[in-house]
Amino acid sequence: MVPIITLTTDMGLDDAYVAAMKGVILGISPEARLIDICHTIRPQDIAQAAFFMGQACPYFPAGTIHLAMVDPGVGTDRRGIILKTKDAFFVAPDNGILSYVVKPKTDGRLPPGTEAVVLTRRKFWRKDVSATFHGRDIFAPVAAHLSLGRSISEFGETIDRIEVLKISRPRKTKGGLTGHIIHVDTYGNLITDIAAQDLPRTGTAFKININGRELTGLSRTYADTAGLLALIGSGGYLEIAEHNANAAATLRAKVGDKVNIIL
Amino acid sequence: MVPIITLTTDMGLDDAYVAAMKGVILGISPEARLIDICHTIRPQDIAQAAFFMGQACPYFPAGTIHLAMVDPGVGTDRRGIILKTKDAFFVAPDNGILSYVVKPKTDGRLPPGTEAVVLTRRKFWRKDVSATFHGRDIFAPVAAHLSLGRSISEFGETIDRIEVLKISRPRKTKGGLTGHIIHVDTYGNLITDIAAQDLPRTGTAFKININGRELTGLSRTYADTAGLLALIGSGGYLEIAEHNANAAATLRAKVGDKVNIIL
Amino acid sequence: MVPIITLTTDMGLDDAYVAAMKGVILGISPEARLIDICHTIRPQDIAQAAFFMGQACPYFPAGTIHLAMVDPGVGTDRRGIILKTKDAFFVAPDNGILSYVVKPKTDGRLPPGTEAVVLTRRKFWRKDVSATFHGRDIFAPVAAHLSLGRSISEFGETIDRIEVLKISRPRKTKGGLTGHIIHVDTYGNLITDIAAQDLPRTGTAFKININGRELTGLSRTYADTAGLLALIGSGGYLEIAEHNANAAATLRAKVGDKVNIIL
Repeated sequence: MVPIITLTTDMGLDDAYVAAMKGVILGISPEARLIDICHTIRPQDIAQAAFFMGQACPYFPAGTIHLAMVDPGVGTDRRGIILKTKDAFFVAPDNGILSYVVKPKTDGRLPPGTEAVVLTRRKFWRKDVSATFHGRDIFAPVAAHLSLGRSISEFGETIDRIEVLKISRPRKTKGGLTGHIIHVDTYGNLITDIAAQDLPRTGTAFKININGRELTGLSRTYADTAGLLALIGSGGYLEIAEHNANAAATLRAKVGDKVNIIL
Repeated sequence: MVPIITLTTDMGLDDAYVAAMKGVILGISPEARLIDICHTIRPQDIAQAAFFMGQACPYFPAGTIHLAMVDPGVGTDRRGIILKTKDAFFVAPDNGILSYVVKPKTDGRLPPGTEAVVLTRRKFWRKDVSATFHGRDIFAPVAAHLSLGRSISEFGETIDRIEVLKISRPRKTKGGLTGHIIHVDTYGNLITDIAAQDLPRTGTAFKININGRELTGLSRTYADTAGLLALIGSGGYLEIAEHNANAAATLRAKVGDKVNIIL
Repeated sequence: MVPIITLTTDMGLDDAYVAAMKGVILGISPEARLIDICHTIRPQDIAQAAFFMGQACPYFPAGTIHLAMVDPGVGTDRRGIILKTKDAFFVAPDNGILSYVVKPKTDGRLPPGTEAVVLTRRKFWRKDVSATFHGRDIFAPVAAHLSLGRSISEFGETIDRIEVLKISRPRKTKGGLTGHIIHVDTYGNLITDIAAQDLPRTGTAFKININGRELTGLSRTYADTAGLLALIGSGGYLEIAEHNANAAATLRAKVGDKVNIIL
């Protein structure tokens, strides 16, 4: 079975950093399949990387190794970890980047069925570890060795808590809910933190207020209406979109803007 | 033989959508080779995707599966299709995106040597099909199952017509031809809809007018002249370029601008 | 052993050019592993491509084939070459693009342990060679045939000199050194041409002047100080950075700007 290693980073597409990591991986695990999730995470934006991994990782086959490198604390005493779930392995700095793919308790305790270790065994690292690029010198070689079938316990000591992000969630209001835009996608669709299960069913005529505009109820597809519409997007969240147009431009909307639901 | 699956989408490089599709494919066809053609097609720009596929697909080995996802009609009753030619398979929404790689008649009838089916067999789809991301939920799994060697007839009923784009073509004028810029590439080279065979041979001193500038005859390489020049580009079309410079910036030219040939 | 072929080009991510090259390679060498180093090299910027290859290629396993296509002289009489070192193969136009990965003498003589040939054997090229896209028609098929285990001598005649770039290097001044910014990375970190070995050791309190600002000494990590700092980056060069911020924006700095070291 060919091991798959995915990569999610803020290293961009205009540098050779990601390639150096891939070279290191292939030197250790020549058969590894390398799949890019995204490399244009906003610099140091752990929350965006965490959200993207939550959107993509569940679609990969069991046993996939997900390497996540948004690492503002590189070179400090923040820990590196491997987290194992029933579906996948995650290799990442312990900075909250795994908060969507596993759901730790608010105190960081791991959910049942998951195990984690802290990266301490230097024999799986590159010999010369720079202070500024642990992605290349620690995490890439660890992911590569892991893809050869090693047990996670070989890489360091077991831990039972990890860092956890405060995930954006809607708040109940007198008449409904107030959520936020958490992502503006390539099409200008506005993805909110309001999950499908936070809302009445499709068809119910609740109102949605965003940046001074009011929408009524949910559409099923982008082509249901001309103009602005709301629907449950493919990631399971309420999404404001515009058929063959860019809702973010139309609404001058950005990450963090409020979305009010009036039930 | 390792199956190759290429991907052409408008999903961008700043989202996790393409990665979700790749995860789905690898879950079904773990050995598939995934090659990106382009993911920065302008949103909903079927014509641009069709042109790019016409430029890249012919260079892939026989049997390659080309998955094309620019899909403004997602969730509506537009069809999904597999098209088989003697060289390749194409999996795509039936919206004209295959108009350069095959040359359907203007009424959509398929050329000899090609076969097509409409995607109706749900057993090759993901169990939960979202209304907004058929790339992940229908087309990716279909391409993956196809890469395992299944016959296209297993995926749905045979059809003999597909949607066809009105492809941009030059028009004859009194003194020559009027074409259009159909693509501005990374270098600022202006690719037109005027094919090599529409023109007299290299060396003939016809005139080319574009945005108020006149060029004479064809060069062979970008380095033939300092300044603006015209040549037959690597895709077989008349191209306006500037040596070590950006012709689009120099000429303030964009897709749709006219190019006049005076013979 | 699966052969790895890396690609470094200025062809961008918004065109189908790179995909056409990959299709050609896979048609000849179906098992080749294709890894992108970077495709957003500034158009025709040979020095940037050379620097990026110097940063990434050493991390790939022995025997990797590095294909480099920044080729402003395409179609002219500039040569194509294969260069073999003890670690890797390089397939590229002979225009200085290999100046960081090997260190030719200033007259272009190759260092000991390296061999090179000029590409002349047309049987390894595509049958129809365009005048404007040798990446697809000459270099891609050559790299693919090379990955099948052929000896470099099959591709053309041995040469003992190659083109060499004048690599940016700091100059000694009365009180220290004057270097230059040679790269601004995705994070806004300013990479200079001042190598670690050009400087006193970490901890020594020399001064660094850049765009009117003065920094003192070297930090170890990006998180060592709030605000601007200097450190030796993961590529071995002096780097000006700002913790969780963009030093290039703060300093309005760009490639070519001077960096003064006062010892």
